[in-house]
Amino acid sequence: MVELKGDERIDYLLADQDRRIIQSPTVFSFSIDAVLLANFTYLPIKRGKILDLCTGNGVIPLFLSKRSHATIYGLEIQERIFDMATRNVKLNQLEEQLQVVKGDLKEPPAELANQRFDVVTCNPPYFRTDDGQKKINENEFLAYARHEILCNLDDVLKACSSLVRSKGKVSIVHRPQRVADLITIGKKYNLEPKRLQFVHPKEGREANIVLIEYSKDGKPDLDVLPPIYIHDEDGHYTGEVAKILYGEEGSRFHGRRPEKFSE
Amino acid sequence: MVELKGDERIDYLLADQDRRIIQSPTVFSFSIDAVLLANFTYLPIKRGKILDLCTGNGVIPLFLSKRSHATIYGLEIQERIFDMATRNVKLNQLEEQLQVVKGDLKEPPAELANQRFDVVTCNPPYFRTDDGQKKINENEFLAYARHEILCNLDDVLKACSSLVRSKGKVSIVHRPQRVADLITIGKKYNLEPKRLQFVHPKEGREANIVLIEYSKDGKPDLDVLPPIYIHDEDGHYTGEVAKILYGEEGSRFHGRRPEKFSE
Repeated sequence: MVELKGDERIDYLLADQDRRIIQSPTVFSFSIDAVLLANFTYLPIKRGKILDLCTGNGVIPLFLSKRSHATIYGLEIQERIFDMATRNVKLNQLEEQLQVVKGDLKEPPAELANQRFDVVTCNPPYFRTDDGQKKINENEFLAYARHEILCNLDDVLKACSSLVRSKGKVSIVHRPQRVADLITIGKKYNLEPKRLQFVHPKEGREANIVLIEYSKDGKPDLDVLPPIYIHDEDGHYTGEVAKILYGEEGSRFHGRRPEKFSE
Repeated sequence: MVELKGDERIDYLLADQDRRIIQSPTVFSFSIDAVLLANFTYLPIKRGKILDLCTGNGVIPLFLSKRSHATIYGLEIQERIFDMATRNVKLNQLEEQLQVVKGDLKEPPAELANQRFDVVTCNPPYFRTDDGQKKINENEFLAYARHEILCNLDDVLKACSSLVRSKGKVSIVHRPQRVADLITIGKKYNLEPKRLQFVHPKEGREANIVLIEYSKDGKPDLDVLPPIYIHDEDGHYTGEVAKILYGEEGSRFHGRRPEKFSE
């Protein structure tokens, strides 16, 4: 059995009856961004090594483990959240495939720093702390997860570049306002943008999420994928998103808005 | 009367009965890219100065003149095409508002270089000549218009930046494969990306055109607009594109594919 702490609860990983996840509204709950990133990321299927930075409660490794037999590592800096991720691995009996490491991506622990990964993923803190505009979340756990306090985008891409192998892939989810930074900082660290996908809350609205995949030392050749729309005109999930959230059976859930899901 | 040369013909500027344009299949015909760029570009309405680089037969100034009373200049390097543009101004009796200048954007003529413009637009040659991949068009006029022979993207953005006033706007149409270059080279010349819009041939397909607007010396704050789809499932123009091509009356033409229009 796995212990629950404070206001934690166990959710199903969306409609997936095979995966469960410990979440907490005050410590860490996964967002649609993590689901979209996991879905967007190209993976080696049979073998290889994958690393998820800023892994939080391990949601992205849990998703990725459904699609790949590769060994998957997660790195989390906050002790309290690292502890959740560790229990999530145990809860799903995935100790053979998943390993969560506690540490700072600015100085990765030796057990990670000594490896080169085929794929590195990251759903980093989005909000700048140097522009004086955003009110920082008063909850420490959420503040560190959402604001560039412990690391900024330059730190993230530098770490991705140093940990991925040459020609390996890095995939990131972020806000479209940072596309220019994602490209210029990526290039600084020899991460060449290869795929770009924008996510719009609905048709006719500006994008509010961007997914980007880089190739370390790759050649310039960028594809801009068809956009994703989250909601239809009626405010329900589109068929495409329902499928991402709930899998092939998505159409059964089409229109459902799960309550335990932070957007 | 305006003289026609060689295989030139006079077309209506799409469904616009107020504007006509001299084109030639072997020298210069405008593309949907030019129409999309003209539509995308924010303009001062009552006064100001606008410059269109790589103006070709003057199609973009002709479109822009419908939406603004600003003075509009076009710069074209090829004598034969500059001559077409000049006759297009005359044909439309727009000598008071439009002026076409012959010259090289790498060394703009003094009458332009001594001014700072509110808006600079450009539909530049798209195809790289340094990658050895693309077969260059054997027709000299078309080769110069489509391939980076006389100028490359760095030259274009450098010229835009030097000719636009601080806080003025630069808008460019290009291929999505060059988004990374558009952003990194733009930043090199203090052109901050502010609006980005992708154009897809139809739903579910990768983008094949990108529209980008910069602000000279602007603050970082990028909006990614809703995408544009050119064709619907049946291969007809979408309502949105029909409206761009044919104006408010677009719905009447919805589905029509004009033959005299190169895509």
